[in-house]
Amino acid sequence: MNVLKLEDFTTQEINEILDLAEEFKNGKKVDYQGKKIIANLFFEPSTRTHYSFDTAALRLGCRTQNFDAGNSSLKKGETLYDTVKTFEMFGVDALVIRHTENEYYKQLVNNIHIPILNAGDGTGNHPSQSLLDLLTIRQEFGKFQGLKAVIVGDIRHSRVAHTNFKIMQRLGMTVYTSGPLEYKEEGYNYVEFDDIIDKVDVVMLLRVQHERHEEEMKETKQQYHQQFGLSSSRVKGMKDQAIIMHPAPFNRNVEIADDVVECNKSRIFKQVQNGVYIRMALLHMVLGENV
Amino acid sequence: MNVLKLEDFTTQEINEILDLAEEFKNGKKVDYQGKKIIANLFFEPSTRTHYSFDTAALRLGCRTQNFDAGNSSLKKGETLYDTVKTFEMFGVDALVIRHTENEYYKQLVNNIHIPILNAGDGTGNHPSQSLLDLLTIRQEFGKFQGLKAVIVGDIRHSRVAHTNFKIMQRLGMTVYTSGPLEYKEEGYNYVEFDDIIDKVDVVMLLRVQHERHEEEMKETKQQYHQQFGLSSSRVKGMKDQAIIMHPAPFNRNVEIADDVVECNKSRIFKQVQNGVYIRMALLHMVLGENV
Amino acid sequence: MNVLKLEDFTTQEINEILDLAEEFKNGKKVDYQGKKIIANLFFEPSTRTHYSFDTAALRLGCRTQNFDAGNSSLKKGETLYDTVKTFEMFGVDALVIRHTENEYYKQLVNNIHIPILNAGDGTGNHPSQSLLDLLTIRQEFGKFQGLKAVIVGDIRHSRVAHTNFKIMQRLGMTVYTSGPLEYKEEGYNYVEFDDIIDKVDVVMLLRVQHERHEEEMKETKQQYHQQFGLSSSRVKGMKDQAIIMHPAPFNRNVEIADDVVECNKSRIFKQVQNGVYIRMALLHMVLGENV
Repeated sequence: MNVLKLEDFTTQEINEILDLAEEFKNGKKVDYQGKKIIANLFFEPSTRTHYSFDTAALRLGCRTQNFDAGNSSLKKGETLYDTVKTFEMFGVDALVIRHTENEYYKQLVNNIHIPILNAGDGTGNHPSQSLLDLLTIRQEFGKFQGLKAVIVGDIRHSRVAHTNFKIMQRLGMTVYTSGPLEYKEEGYNYVEFDDIIDKVDVVMLLRVQHERHEEEMKETKQQYHQQFGLSSSRVKGMKDQAIIMHPAPFNRNVEIADDVVECNKSRIFKQVQNGVYIRMALLHMVLGENV
Repeated sequence: MNVLKLEDFTTQEINEILDLAEEFKNGKKVDYQGKKIIANLFFEPSTRTHYSFDTAALRLGCRTQNFDAGNSSLKKGETLYDTVKTFEMFGVDALVIRHTENEYYKQLVNNIHIPILNAGDGTGNHPSQSLLDLLTIRQEFGKFQGLKAVIVGDIRHSRVAHTNFKIMQRLGMTVYTSGPLEYKEEGYNYVEFDDIIDKVDVVMLLRVQHERHEEEMKETKQQYHQQFGLSSSRVKGMKDQAIIMHPAPFNRNVEIADDVVECNKSRIFKQVQNGVYIRMALLHMVLGENV
Repeated sequence: MNVLKLEDFTTQEINEILDLAEEFKNGKKVDYQGKKIIANLFFEPSTRTHYSFDTAALRLGCRTQNFDAGNSSLKKGETLYDTVKTFEMFGVDALVIRHTENEYYKQLVNNIHIPILNAGDGTGNHPSQSLLDLLTIRQEFGKFQGLKAVIVGDIRHSRVAHTNFKIMQRLGMTVYTSGPLEYKEEGYNYVEFDDIIDKVDVVMLLRVQHERHEEEMKETKQQYHQQFGLSSSRVKGMKDQAIIMHPAPFNRNVEIADDVVECNKSRIFKQVQNGVYIRMALLHMVLGENV
């Protein structure tokens, strides 16, 4: 069983994953007693997702291998498939993979016979991130149906935006997007941020990737913050029960003001916490054992 | 007890290691219960050997440390001996070391009092690789005596070629080498690849190290593939029971055609699998405990 | 409970830590059975301190995470606080942090609610190193009161020198410093090395950081060795019971002659060994559990 993209899961299956994550949050214990090995293969820099999966595996009593793509046979020109097949042959029990290429997993799934958990593919999918976002929303509102959210930032290049937009609509939410026009994605309900901010239950910010899009991006950090950044004054315009989310890492004083990061509407670090429970649920699900 | 080069082991000892590896393949369980720490010190990039040793140690219930040579005191000019002595002083139970220098271990063995497993020294030795090759051959043919093998590629710079040529001859095999003339090694039975391919039981390919020998190498990748690469048509000329081996990582369509990598004569990924059993056997042997 | 700098601990507390380390040296067993996770966050290269903490945690039966600062979200501009907060949210049980910035921990302590062990901050503090130095001295002389030590090298940039100078004085030792005049620190009892070497019980050498101070440093390696290096002939001038210490890594034939490194007065590798016991004591202390 693989976890490649949320489209492969029914709404009921998604709710079952959230339920299992909630159980882990409430103290459910599973201990694989060192008998399962999880290999984390990260071909792109990551703190949060990588170590979140690592922590999740350790908490389940699994052993982990952390593959350092910078110091490996990839330097010798080995293909992704051959690297992944090698880890399968080692006898590891599941693979957590992040790669820059969209749908990299298509070249793997037919010939790899152990579970693959997609930890992000290019600008495509990031299922565990979406699931932790959903868990955070469900904890807050107890439902998805009827909620309104706006996702703000570089929609076009964001796997978080792509994955969340679709799944949130499927779950009954109304989802808008906003941000610089050069990053607008057709068919994604584009609105002006200041026109929608007082009407939504969830403001989901995306990271400004200045290191990737230096040339393309028209705004300076200051201009971005002024036009699309979540400042204290914008927070004041939000609904009473509305919450702020961000997949992190975030740029303080660019997409989010320094003093908003840990304000009472922010669920940003709670998302990090939920990420571990979601990944425990996913790992336990694919390892397929009740112990 | 160290594992530095196969010349240090009698034929009987080598067969005992293969037997122990076979037992691990057949399910033998050993659990050091986290009480042994293995430090993997890799001063040269490696996926296969590094993580194969790591997996082997984890499966034996050992804990592992993976020393990142790129982010270490080596940057501060520390000698190899001083780095290795430091890990001995930490109290780790065995060291797995790969280094670019031939016979690097000579500067270590007199003053380091815990087991060293050589995971490759320069162009010299790679004992665990040879042992997994031997295990793969023995599984296939049930013996070594009388078998014929050809090793094809950059013989001169290959520790796999050097180690295998000697040990296979000792075990009663007839070993030939082939490949570009500029990499021919004197005294290593050089033959034309196409003259020998229909007569051998084992075709062992070596990786073309284009990243190392860009200037020296006379052939383009295409020319190499045409002259020395294992294509489908060359495979058709092989004996019925003959097998294809490669220490990996391999360059698809250079030394081996894409569609040959996983053909029915190929044992390449089986070698990877056997590598873990061999390394479990070696670690268990040097840890010197029956638990 | 944090371990940030030794000034925060009373003399009695320091002696209790040394006592606990001594107990671990004498075989005391503690096993957290994989239930505690220690994250090692190293934002500066380190072999000794990093893997010493890692070994200490593994020997206590903890699981460890080794954060690769070079391959992380720091590349995406994340602040130190946000990275550290993320690990807290993951639910790890303690953090071991090294960072280039002096007193980096001041920005953390108010909002991070799990123990932080400072593994070195800029040119400021390095409490676990000082404690292992103290343990080595106490093992040798059974006391601190009345002992004389000289610290030789780049005093100004050395967190070892700064931390040791203060704590050794507090414990009743007389401490001198020596080395190149351009690295002299005011108020640190500067003396000529050759005037004091026959009068001290402890000669503590510091590493010459040629990679950092290439321009500033006036001496070549040869000149340094002649003026401040511990040569065999200088060793002959030392008191009979006097010992040689170095926090390592060391430059052979710069601050210390090749044949002095493991001479009978040297405690350099014993310091490495003691480092693991000290870190076991510190980790056990902050984890706050008797198991």
